[in-house]
Amino acid sequence: MTGRLSVVGLGPGAAALTAPAATAALAQADDVVGYGPYVARVPERPGQQRHASDNREELDRARLALALAAAGRKVAVVSSGDAGVFAMASAVFEALDGGPPAWAALEIEVIPGISAMIAVAARLGAPLGNDFCVLSLSDNLKPWAVVERRLALAAEGGFVLAFYNPISRARPWQLGAAFDIVRQHRPPSTPVVFAAAVSRPDETILITDLGSADPAAADMRTLVLIGCEGTRLIPRADGPPWLYTARRVAPP
Amino acid sequence: MTGRLSVVGLGPGAAALTAPAATAALAQADDVVGYGPYVARVPERPGQQRHASDNREELDRARLALALAAAGRKVAVVSSGDAGVFAMASAVFEALDGGPPAWAALEIEVIPGISAMIAVAARLGAPLGNDFCVLSLSDNLKPWAVVERRLALAAEGGFVLAFYNPISRARPWQLGAAFDIVRQHRPPSTPVVFAAAVSRPDETILITDLGSADPAAADMRTLVLIGCEGTRLIPRADGPPWLYTARRVAPP
Repeated sequence: MTGRLSVVGLGPGAAALTAPAATAALAQADDVVGYGPYVARVPERPGQQRHASDNREELDRARLALALAAAGRKVAVVSSGDAGVFAMASAVFEALDGGPPAWAALEIEVIPGISAMIAVAARLGAPLGNDFCVLSLSDNLKPWAVVERRLALAAEGGFVLAFYNPISRARPWQLGAAFDIVRQHRPPSTPVVFAAAVSRPDETILITDLGSADPAAADMRTLVLIGCEGTRLIPRADGPPWLYTARRVAPP
Repeated sequence: MTGRLSVVGLGPGAAALTAPAATAALAQADDVVGYGPYVARVPERPGQQRHASDNREELDRARLALALAAAGRKVAVVSSGDAGVFAMASAVFEALDGGPPAWAALEIEVIPGISAMIAVAARLGAPLGNDFCVLSLSDNLKPWAVVERRLALAAEGGFVLAFYNPISRARPWQLGAAFDIVRQHRPPSTPVVFAAAVSRPDETILITDLGSADPAAADMRTLVLIGCEGTRLIPRADGPPWLYTARRVAPP
């Protein structure tokens, strides 16, 4: 069997933020599998098959990729950012775990990428400069009660918070509910950021605060960051303020 | 003023995992500033000044870099992994925040990198495939009581846990204490990983469980991951098992 499956994180968007290992895997792939807009980011190559699918079909997509690799193809499954953070990697291993025994012998590699939270943080300064929690607000695969409980515990613990999948047409109210939970633990002046398409031409970044954060500022591509007690703004001469979280934490 | 400060994440080690934007910034730098072993990873260039310093001197290092940039030099401050995750970026902004007003006009950019947790997760499979918390176990800049409280809340919330700075000669007992806290919330079978130098020739990865995790397996370069209820092992034909965290969470 000469097939191979590479699970590839494309980084946030700019070619200068894609790892050379990812670029190499894409250049060698016979098949590129992924959500349509991510497949579209891969440079086309003659003879390469592209399998673009809709959002929310992760498990079917993972099975297709594994089946192609088992048939001897060199396959790249692509995600934006890093494949391991609310992207395709866990779907691939779920499919492997429940799949035909022959798949256990497949050559698989996961090529890490610069995740959205890392790219957004760099653009802002250093808001992830202290302990932080990363949550998906989607309740498609976990009960909303679990999300609520995790939000309350993370907010109580003083972690900086990063939200993936904050909102969608099918999940319109969850981000507002999440803000309300965090407001029980943090003052209205707490910095909040809505960021999308960082490093791409259509990049948008909004810095606001918890008191006035409006869920309507987010869509399904947005990463939302909420600061903690040590998160501070620094005015900048020629641009939006820098945002960073101090390394020092005061005694409770 | 023509100086510029680039805060650069080098990625975990392999050149194929360093972003082209980072490589470009290093090639243009007049001065490279950082912890000795990280400066040593930057290819030498004639005429480039290298300022290697000891560990735990982050703020002095940040001030040096800002002063050099204010004097008109092109400066790169380097960190392993990503500069924004328990590395130099927050120290740079702390120094800026308390520094001379002229520094507010400096051109600064933070170039994101593949952080250790992302690289380790990719090597293992997809252990960060659901909600996770990232903590530094160092109590140099925050009281241990804060670390304990955060650990307990994150463990209670069912987050996957990633620990940076788990142990050092000056902090020998903290990792053992952290395991004890997590053991109050998770069964002994919970997967635990010790990983160091991922993607480098001296890479080490140990997969064990919470019942038998021994803090002596870590040193100051180690990243420690602790799984959650949904974290599973998949046997692999020709290597260590894959580790992933399922996307689905059962009702509480």
